[in-house]
Amino acid sequence: MRTAAAYAMPSPNGAFEKVTIERRELGPRDVLIDVKYAGICHSDIHTARDEWGGAAYPCVPGREIAGIVAAVGSAVNKHQVGDRVGVGCMVDSCGVCAPCLADEEQYCESGATMTYNTPVDPAVQPGGHTMGGYSTQVVVTEHFVLAIPEGIGLDVAAPLLCAGITLFSPLRHWHAGPGKQVAIVGMGGLGHVGVKIAAALGAEVTVLSHSLSKQDDGKLFGANHYYATSDKQTFRELRNRFDIIINTVSADLPIDSYLRLLAVNGTLVQLGLPENPMSVKTFNLAAYRRSLSGSMIGGIAQTQEMLNFCAEHGIGAEIELISADEIDGAFDRVVASDVRYRFVIDAATI
Amino acid sequence: MRTAAAYAMPSPNGAFEKVTIERRELGPRDVLIDVKYAGICHSDIHTARDEWGGAAYPCVPGREIAGIVAAVGSAVNKHQVGDRVGVGCMVDSCGVCAPCLADEEQYCESGATMTYNTPVDPAVQPGGHTMGGYSTQVVVTEHFVLAIPEGIGLDVAAPLLCAGITLFSPLRHWHAGPGKQVAIVGMGGLGHVGVKIAAALGAEVTVLSHSLSKQDDGKLFGANHYYATSDKQTFRELRNRFDIIINTVSADLPIDSYLRLLAVNGTLVQLGLPENPMSVKTFNLAAYRRSLSGSMIGGIAQTQEMLNFCAEHGIGAEIELISADEIDGAFDRVVASDVRYRFVIDAATI
Repeated sequence: MRTAAAYAMPSPNGAFEKVTIERRELGPRDVLIDVKYAGICHSDIHTARDEWGGAAYPCVPGREIAGIVAAVGSAVNKHQVGDRVGVGCMVDSCGVCAPCLADEEQYCESGATMTYNTPVDPAVQPGGHTMGGYSTQVVVTEHFVLAIPEGIGLDVAAPLLCAGITLFSPLRHWHAGPGKQVAIVGMGGLGHVGVKIAAALGAEVTVLSHSLSKQDDGKLFGANHYYATSDKQTFRELRNRFDIIINTVSADLPIDSYLRLLAVNGTLVQLGLPENPMSVKTFNLAAYRRSLSGSMIGGIAQTQEMLNFCAEHGIGAEIELISADEIDGAFDRVVASDVRYRFVIDAATI
Repeated sequence: MRTAAAYAMPSPNGAFEKVTIERRELGPRDVLIDVKYAGICHSDIHTARDEWGGAAYPCVPGREIAGIVAAVGSAVNKHQVGDRVGVGCMVDSCGVCAPCLADEEQYCESGATMTYNTPVDPAVQPGGHTMGGYSTQVVVTEHFVLAIPEGIGLDVAAPLLCAGITLFSPLRHWHAGPGKQVAIVGMGGLGHVGVKIAAALGAEVTVLSHSLSKQDDGKLFGANHYYATSDKQTFRELRNRFDIIINTVSADLPIDSYLRLLAVNGTLVQLGLPENPMSVKTFNLAAYRRSLSGSMIGGIAQTQEMLNFCAEHGIGAEIELISADEIDGAFDRVVASDVRYRFVIDAATI
């Protein structure tokens, strides 16, 4: 076993503290990564604070990891020492089920091994559950290690590993592109990347945000239109407008009002997981053959496609770089939606 | 104006009575049809009894019409006197909006003119609202008149004009066919036609019915599997199984239980319109990129495709032929699910 420094949450109501954790020795297919940056995803907060239940402690979150390859196992051929690489939400999957064989490891029938807080054999991760990117080093099997192309900073690339693919995957799956009307609901950590990607894909992009306070940013990111959902007129004016609506908001929204904004054959994709079940009037689906769908991150091959796409189009996340001792405060600010647009931890401070 | 005999409901709580109604004289694009058979659709009941609100009286329902062309307007070139024809749920639409131009008149942006109870100019239908197929004759613009191919009886063809296209359209839209797992929820007037069509399309078909009472029929119609939804084991055994689930049941179902039966990328299509909003847990959508969708009948071109397909595959509805003075009792039996599987009125008795 090798050791690494990490920031860990010791208990649901605790505060982050610096700890030393163990990482496994490299197996033939393993890649050792020196973490340079780790983004703070809202899931990190839900897990560290045990809001979804079942969290294991000490909890080392971090599923938006960018770094440099420090060593590789004997059989690794996908990455070399010195490569710029990233790790997202998954670090393993069964590899043999239909979704895995279709490059959709996120829907692995056995359940993918998530980057943190998934129970695993202590030989895989001492402590018995995976530990993520709030750490100086991670060991990940090569298939789940992504190449970060030149031309995109590691700091602004880190959030793409979760936020980026979470938006890219549904935008591609539902064919966002020229001639398509795409709305992004909420312009936070997920939404702002969605605006950039949807615009780069060639779609006509509308932001639906609670207020107009981020309108200038939205236009800068590539949005063609920006509407406040606090204004009832928005829902009248945009009726039947969109081919794709991506909802990044986890709060309970009046989903019928949003479904009515979909054109014939339109799809509303839920990314957030609101605490309460949604209430849906069937008529709003049947009337225009609309769909209410959900999507969860994306497969490894598509994550690489996303990184290549973002590099080609100069897309990175908008970030606030923090040091590791600021994580607790950053969590509170994320909960208060007080971040433009993603916190990224400088791993040099861990 | 010409007159026709019809069975009309005079008021929400009334009983059907024989009346004389007027039909418009033939315009250049109009087709006069001698009605031979009219199916009884659940929508007829909802409308005649004003359960959806806004019904206009006298109400002459009937949107599953099969008959023979009796006369044509001067510019009609699609149909000739003597042709076997059908009329479904729609008799007109704007013809110029995007859905109409895409052969999806059912989603006409101005609202399609439905076969009965849509407000229209009295020049189109004396009385000011459309009147349907519980009548000896109808006058319909040629675009909305379908050809019923030889080899399919007019009596068993009638229900295809609504029930048939209502199932055919989503099965085609979501690509039911070889290698696809399709479930039909409910084996009534809609469902039994769905089983036949899905099987003929080459899909592996499962019926999910409250009990096993119609299992023998289901297998006869082409179902490969038949499960009772009253048995909780059904929901365990079939988890993640289906690519397409078509829900024909209008009652409030625990929709999350059905969503969990969908495979990755699977779609549950709601055809019924339950009285209450559905409760949907977002996780069940996101976990496997599932969709909850709705669908409403189908366009005219696709309705013709459906009739041709059914003729080619020997598919007709299973019917109980009744005389016009039995409509009230038939309505009660439909509400009680006591029909195998569709009532059809013999228009000779009107």
